[in-house]
Amino acid sequence: MKKPLGELALIERIRSEWAASGRGNHSRVRNVALGIGDDCAILRPPSGHELLVTTDFTLEGRHFRREWHPPESVGHRTLARGLSDLAAMGARPLAAFLSLALPAEMLATRAGQSWVKRFFTGLHALADQHQVPLAGGDTSESPCGLVLADIVLLGSAPAGRALRRSGGRPGDALYVTGELGGAAAELAAMELRSGKRQPTLSHQTGKDGPPGSVAHPQLFPDPRIPVGLALLRRRLATAAIDLSDGLSTDLAHLCRESGLGADVSVDALPIHPLARKDNAAPNRALSLALNGGEDYELLFAAPPTVKVPRSLAGIGITRIGSLVRGRSISLVDLDGRRSPLQPGGWEHFTKNSRITPAPCMTPPKSFVRP
Amino acid sequence: MKKPLGELALIERIRSEWAASGRGNHSRVRNVALGIGDDCAILRPPSGHELLVTTDFTLEGRHFRREWHPPESVGHRTLARGLSDLAAMGARPLAAFLSLALPAEMLATRAGQSWVKRFFTGLHALADQHQVPLAGGDTSESPCGLVLADIVLLGSAPAGRALRRSGGRPGDALYVTGELGGAAAELAAMELRSGKRQPTLSHQTGKDGPPGSVAHPQLFPDPRIPVGLALLRRRLATAAIDLSDGLSTDLAHLCRESGLGADVSVDALPIHPLARKDNAAPNRALSLALNGGEDYELLFAAPPTVKVPRSLAGIGITRIGSLVRGRSISLVDLDGRRSPLQPGGWEHFTKNSRITPAPCMTPPKSFVRP
Repeated sequence: MKKPLGELALIERIRSEWAASGRGNHSRVRNVALGIGDDCAILRPPSGHELLVTTDFTLEGRHFRREWHPPESVGHRTLARGLSDLAAMGARPLAAFLSLALPAEMLATRAGQSWVKRFFTGLHALADQHQVPLAGGDTSESPCGLVLADIVLLGSAPAGRALRRSGGRPGDALYVTGELGGAAAELAAMELRSGKRQPTLSHQTGKDGPPGSVAHPQLFPDPRIPVGLALLRRRLATAAIDLSDGLSTDLAHLCRESGLGADVSVDALPIHPLARKDNAAPNRALSLALNGGEDYELLFAAPPTVKVPRSLAGIGITRIGSLVRGRSISLVDLDGRRSPLQPGGWEHFTKNSRITPAPCMTPPKSFVRP
Repeated sequence: MKKPLGELALIERIRSEWAASGRGNHSRVRNVALGIGDDCAILRPPSGHELLVTTDFTLEGRHFRREWHPPESVGHRTLARGLSDLAAMGARPLAAFLSLALPAEMLATRAGQSWVKRFFTGLHALADQHQVPLAGGDTSESPCGLVLADIVLLGSAPAGRALRRSGGRPGDALYVTGELGGAAAELAAMELRSGKRQPTLSHQTGKDGPPGSVAHPQLFPDPRIPVGLALLRRRLATAAIDLSDGLSTDLAHLCRESGLGADVSVDALPIHPLARKDNAAPNRALSLALNGGEDYELLFAAPPTVKVPRSLAGIGITRIGSLVRGRSISLVDLDGRRSPLQPGGWEHFTKNSRITPAPCMTPPKSFVRP
C-alpha cells in the first residue's frame, strides 16, 4: 500500500506535471490568465470572437470499462468527447476543465496511482496535439468505486460564424468525414476478447505506431478540429454535428434542428475496415456504420453550388446524401428503393443502442461495493 | 410505472420548462447567443472583461444524501457551489452548465420523476435569484444508481480585477461574511434525525419563510455574489476565497497562495446560532465554525488602511484576524495565548473531516446495486 494521496496532493501533482511538461509554453496559454489553484480559472478569449462551451460525462460502466479500455484510452476519450463538440461548430479550443472522481482505494495502491498517471498521459497527449491547456476542474472521492469524469471544453469562433445544427437548407448536400462504424466494431471485438488479456498499447513509445482512429477508432478517436476550422474558414458548410451517438441518431438531430428531412445513399456510406471485417454478416457493417456511435467524425451540410474537396486537413470527405423538404429521413439504394432510417444510435436512459452494451448492468470486476 | 423518459425527452423538458418560466427574459440572457440543444452553447462575454470558469461535483453519497437532503436542496446546492466560487473572485455570473447522471429507475417511476422535477425547482429558484441562465450541459444514465451532478459556472469581471487567493499582504485584516458552522450543525442535526421523517420544506410557497442560509445553512446556503461584486467595485479586498471546506482549511489555502501566515482571534469568530445550540459542548461550536465547511461564506483580506463597512449587500462582515509574515497560522485568545490552527476541514480522499460524515461508507437506502 502506498500512502493515500489527498485531494491537494493530487491537484498539486496535476498542476506540476502539466507545467513541467512544457505545456505552459504553447500559444493557447496566453488565453489563460490564471489556471489551476484558485476558486476559478481566468480566461481571456480573443476579441471579436464568441465563446463556445460544452460539457461531457465519461463515466465508468457507462462510457468505458476499466478492464476493456486502457487508462490512456480513457484519458484520451474523456478529452476527445469535448473536442469533438468544438470541432462540430468549427471552433478553436481555448481551455479544458476536468472534474474527476476517483475511488479512494485507487489512490491508496501503486496499481491505482499508475492507472491515474496513465489516464493523464492519454489526456495530455491529445491536449498537446490540439494545444489545449487544462485550466482547472474539481476532484472528489467517487461515491461508488467507479471512475467518474466530466470534461468542459471552451473554444472560440469568429462572432456569428459558428456552425450550428440548425443551418441546413433544402437541397444541401450531406457529407461525412473519415469512415463510420469502426469505433463500435472495435468495441464489439473488445467485448469478444473480454476475459482474455487486456490489449497492451504502446501509447508513448509508438511501438505499434501512434494510436489513432485508423487502428483504434474506439480507443483513440480523432476529434476533427482541423476539419471544423477549415469548414468555417472556407465557408463551406451550412450546418454540422459530430457523430457521437451514431449517424442515424445524429442526422435526426441535425434534420430536426434544421426543420428538414434527408435522403442517404446507402451505397455511398464510407464504412471503416474494422466494421467490414466480418464477411459472414454483410448487414452488420451497415448497422455499425449507421447506429454504432462514438466515431466522432463530422456530419455536415453544404449548398449544392459549393465545391467540397475530397479531403480537408488530410481527412477524406464523402458525400452521403442530401437534405430534403419534409421530415422523412430515408435510406436510398442504387435502384432508388427507399426505406425509412430510424434513429438507432445511442440514447441514454432508454438503452436504445444495438451495439454498445449497457455496461452498468454488469459491473466491472474492479467494482468495489461502497 | 410511468413511461421511462429518454435523454432527448429529458433535455426537451429542461429546455421548455426553462423557457416557459420566463427565465429567457432576464438581462443576462443577452450574453447567451445559443443555449441548450446544439453541440456547444455560444456565449458573448461583455467586452473588456475576463472570463471566470469553475466546475464543481455534487455527488450523491459524497456531497448529499437523498434521504437527508430534499431534492430542492440538492438542486440549490449544486448551483450554489459554483456561484460561491464566482462570488469569491468578485465575478458576475454569466451562465451555468449542468452535467447530470440519473439512475434509470428514477426516470421510470412517478416518485423518481417528481424528484427530478423538484431538483430543478431548487436549481431554478437560485438561478433566477442570481439571473443565471442554464445554457447547456450533458445527461447520462448513472452507472451506479446514484445521482451524479457536475456544475460549470462562467462569470465575468473587469480585466485584471478578479479577487485571487494570492493577493494578500502582511498586515492585511481578515474578514468573513455572515456566520460560521451553521451548515455543519444542520447536517449533524439531520444525521441525528435520520430514520425519522424527512423534513418538509415549503420551498415554493414560502410557508416556512423563504429558504436561506439563516434557517437552513446546510440545505440552502446563500452564495455571496452581491458581497463579491461590492468588494470588487469598491476595491476593498486584496485576496478572497469562499468557505466551502471550512475556515481552517480555506484560510490555509489563502495563506499558502499569498505566501503568508495568519493570526485568528478565537473570540471574534461569528458563530451561527445553530452551531451554538448545544450548551453542553462549548468546544463543539468552535470546532463547527473552524472545520465544519459548506458555509459558503467569503473570507477576504483588506489593507489595514481600508475602512471595511460592518455590512455589505445586507450581509454582516466580521473582522477575525490578520495576515502575518511567515507561514504559521494561529488561534489567539483574549489573553494573547496562541495555539496553532491546523487545517481540519474537508479534504477529499483523506476523510480529513471531523464533522461531515463520509457518507459513501454507508450507502443511502435508495442505493441500488448496479
